[in-house]
Amino acid sequence: MYVVIMAGGSGTRFWPASRRDKPKQFLNISGKEPMVLETCNRLRPLASEKEMILVLGREHLKNAHILFKNQDVHLVAEPVGRNTAPCIGLGAIYARHLGCSGAVAFLPADHFIRNPSVFVRDLSHAGEIAQSGGIVTLGIIPTRPETGYGYIRRAKDQPDSTQSTAYQVSAFVEKPDLERAQEYLAGGEYFWNAGIFVATPNTIMKEIQNCLPDLYEALRHLEQALGTEAFETEIEDVYPALKAISFDYGIMEKATCPIFVLPCECGWSDVGSWASLYALKEHTRDPRQNLIEGEPILIDCEKSFISSRSDRLVACLGLENLLVVDTPDALLIADLEKSEEIRKIVAQLRKTQREEYL
Amino acid sequence: MYVVIMAGGSGTRFWPASRRDKPKQFLNISGKEPMVLETCNRLRPLASEKEMILVLGREHLKNAHILFKNQDVHLVAEPVGRNTAPCIGLGAIYARHLGCSGAVAFLPADHFIRNPSVFVRDLSHAGEIAQSGGIVTLGIIPTRPETGYGYIRRAKDQPDSTQSTAYQVSAFVEKPDLERAQEYLAGGEYFWNAGIFVATPNTIMKEIQNCLPDLYEALRHLEQALGTEAFETEIEDVYPALKAISFDYGIMEKATCPIFVLPCECGWSDVGSWASLYALKEHTRDPRQNLIEGEPILIDCEKSFISSRSDRLVACLGLENLLVVDTPDALLIADLEKSEEIRKIVAQLRKTQREEYL
Repeated sequence: MYVVIMAGGSGTRFWPASRRDKPKQFLNISGKEPMVLETCNRLRPLASEKEMILVLGREHLKNAHILFKNQDVHLVAEPVGRNTAPCIGLGAIYARHLGCSGAVAFLPADHFIRNPSVFVRDLSHAGEIAQSGGIVTLGIIPTRPETGYGYIRRAKDQPDSTQSTAYQVSAFVEKPDLERAQEYLAGGEYFWNAGIFVATPNTIMKEIQNCLPDLYEALRHLEQALGTEAFETEIEDVYPALKAISFDYGIMEKATCPIFVLPCECGWSDVGSWASLYALKEHTRDPRQNLIEGEPILIDCEKSFISSRSDRLVACLGLENLLVVDTPDALLIADLEKSEEIRKIVAQLRKTQREEYL
Repeated sequence: MYVVIMAGGSGTRFWPASRRDKPKQFLNISGKEPMVLETCNRLRPLASEKEMILVLGREHLKNAHILFKNQDVHLVAEPVGRNTAPCIGLGAIYARHLGCSGAVAFLPADHFIRNPSVFVRDLSHAGEIAQSGGIVTLGIIPTRPETGYGYIRRAKDQPDSTQSTAYQVSAFVEKPDLERAQEYLAGGEYFWNAGIFVATPNTIMKEIQNCLPDLYEALRHLEQALGTEAFETEIEDVYPALKAISFDYGIMEKATCPIFVLPCECGWSDVGSWASLYALKEHTRDPRQNLIEGEPILIDCEKSFISSRSDRLVACLGLENLLVVDTPDALLIADLEKSEEIRKIVAQLRKTQREEYL
C-alpha cells in the first residue's frame, strides 16, 4: 500500500513555536519527534519508505531533506499551496508513476494518533475496500460535541455485508453549532472528518476528471513530465494557476463513485491549537493539571500550559488557565481558552511588518 | 539642611527586574531615572550636593560611583546591613563630621513622591521644628485602608500653637488588619509611617545613647575615625557586630525627647511591589487599564502590567490582572494581585542554588 502524506501548509496556530520556515508539521509538538516524521513512522507497518510520498511546500524542502536523510521516502514539492484537491491529485499521479495500481492512503502530516495500531489496521481495511473503485474516508468516532470539525454522516444501514464495518456516506457536514454537535454525538450516525482518504490513483483521477476537469488537465500534463528534467519547470508553470480547492468540497461532495466511511477509534486529534494539545496531553500533566515543557518554576499555578523553549528562566506565580510559550526571540502569554485567536497576533505582526517573527 | 538617604537593602520584591547587584533603589522603577537619583534630585531645593549623604551597602558602591560621578554627594558604605537604627546613627555622625549642627532629614532612597514641592516644603518645616531638640516624623495622610504599612497616631490636640501643623505623637502602631485600617482612615488621627525622620545629629546621638547604648559606643568609636584612613578598618570591625534594629522600634518608641508628627500630603508611595507600582501609575495606563513598558503586542488584554525589558517580542492575548516582566535572562508571569509573593520564587531560587538569577 502506498501512502501520500500531505505536509503543506504554514499553520500559524502554534506561534511562536511554529514559524513560516518551521510550521507545525516540522515541530515535535505532540511527541518526541517532528510530527511529519512521527506520521511516517506510524505508517511503517503499512508501507515501506519507497511507498511513502511526502507532498510539501517548496520552502520546506531543505528542512525535509535534513529530516529524512538516509531514508527512501519520496519528497514532492509544491511551488505554492493550493489546498488538498491539487495536493491529492499530485500524490495520485506520483504514486501511479511509481507503479502503484492498488490503494493509496492520503493523509495530513500533522495529526496525533493515540493508538497507531488501530489506525493502521483501519487504514489497511480501508485499502481493501478501496480496491473495488470507491473512495473510503476514515470517520473518527466523536468523543465530545466538537464544533471545530466538519462531520461525515453515514447512511442508516450498511449497504453491503461483505464490507463489514464500512458505511456509505450520506452527507459531508460543515462545522456545526454546539446544539447540533450534541445531537451528532448522541445520534451515532456522525463522525469527525479527519481529512483522511483511501482510494486507488485511478479512482482519484477519474473523479478529478469528473468534478474538476481543469485540475485533471493540469495533472495529466504534469504526469507526462514526471521522472524527466522538465517536471520542475512544468509544475512551476502549472501549479500557481490552479484553483485552490479542498478535496472534500471539490471531489467528495460531488463524486460519482461509491463513497464510504469507515468508523475509526484510534484516539485521533488534529492538534489544532495549543488548547487542543493541552487537552490531549492529559496523562503528562502534573497533579495540579499543569502541562510543563522545559524547567520553569511554578508556584501556586493550575490548569496552565507552560512551555519553556529558551534557555531563560521562566517563573510563574498564581496562574490559572494560562498559556506561556517562551522561545529565544518571542514570547506568547495567552488565556489558554483563547489560544485559537493567536491568528490575531500573527495578523498584527504582518500588518506591522515584523517579518522576522513570522 | 543636610539629608541622609538610606539606600541599603537588597529588596527582592521587584524580581526579576531587581537583583542582588541591582536592587530596587538602583532601578528606574517608578520614573525615568534610578530611584536613588530621583530621591537626591527631589531634595535639591533643600540641600546642596555637599549636604547629601548616601548610606548604602558596600556591594552597591561601584554602582553608586557610576550613578553619581561628577557629583559631590557623599557616599558612605555599610559592610553589612543592620536595619535603620545603625544606618541613621552612621548618617548622623557623618553629618556632624561635615560640620552640620542643624537639622538633618533621614529618608529611604526608594520611595515615590507625586508632589515633590509639597514634600520638600514639609521637610523644611520639619527641619525648623527639629531645631528645638525633638524628632519630627512625616505622617503621610492615608488615602485608603492600607494594611501593609505601620501607622503613627497623633495626640488629640496640638501641643503648641507655635508649631502650626505638627502634632505630638501618641503612639507608633504596627500594621493593622483591614477593620482597624478602616477605622484609622475614618478617624483622622492616624498617619502612614513612611520611615522619614528629621532631627539634629546631636538629638539623634543623645537618643541613641539613651535607648541603644551599645550602638552609641560603636558610633562614637567610628566618629573618631571619620576622615582618617582608619575608618574603613574600624567600620569593618564594628558594624557586623551591631544588633540589627529599626529606628522606629529601637528609638522612636522609647525616646525621651519630644516626638512630633507632621501631616504630609505629598502623594507618597513606598512602591513596595509590582502591584503598588501598577496602582500608582494610574495616569500612564492605556484605556483598558494596562500598564505597558517596552513595545509588547497586546490583544484583548486588560488591567495587566506588561514590562518588556528584553529585546524579544512579547505578545499577550486575552490577559486580565496579569503581571509579565520579561528580562534578558529571566521571565516572571504572575497574578498581579499576588505579586507580593514573589519572595516565594526568590526563596526557591536560593534553595535550588540558582544564584545567577538572584
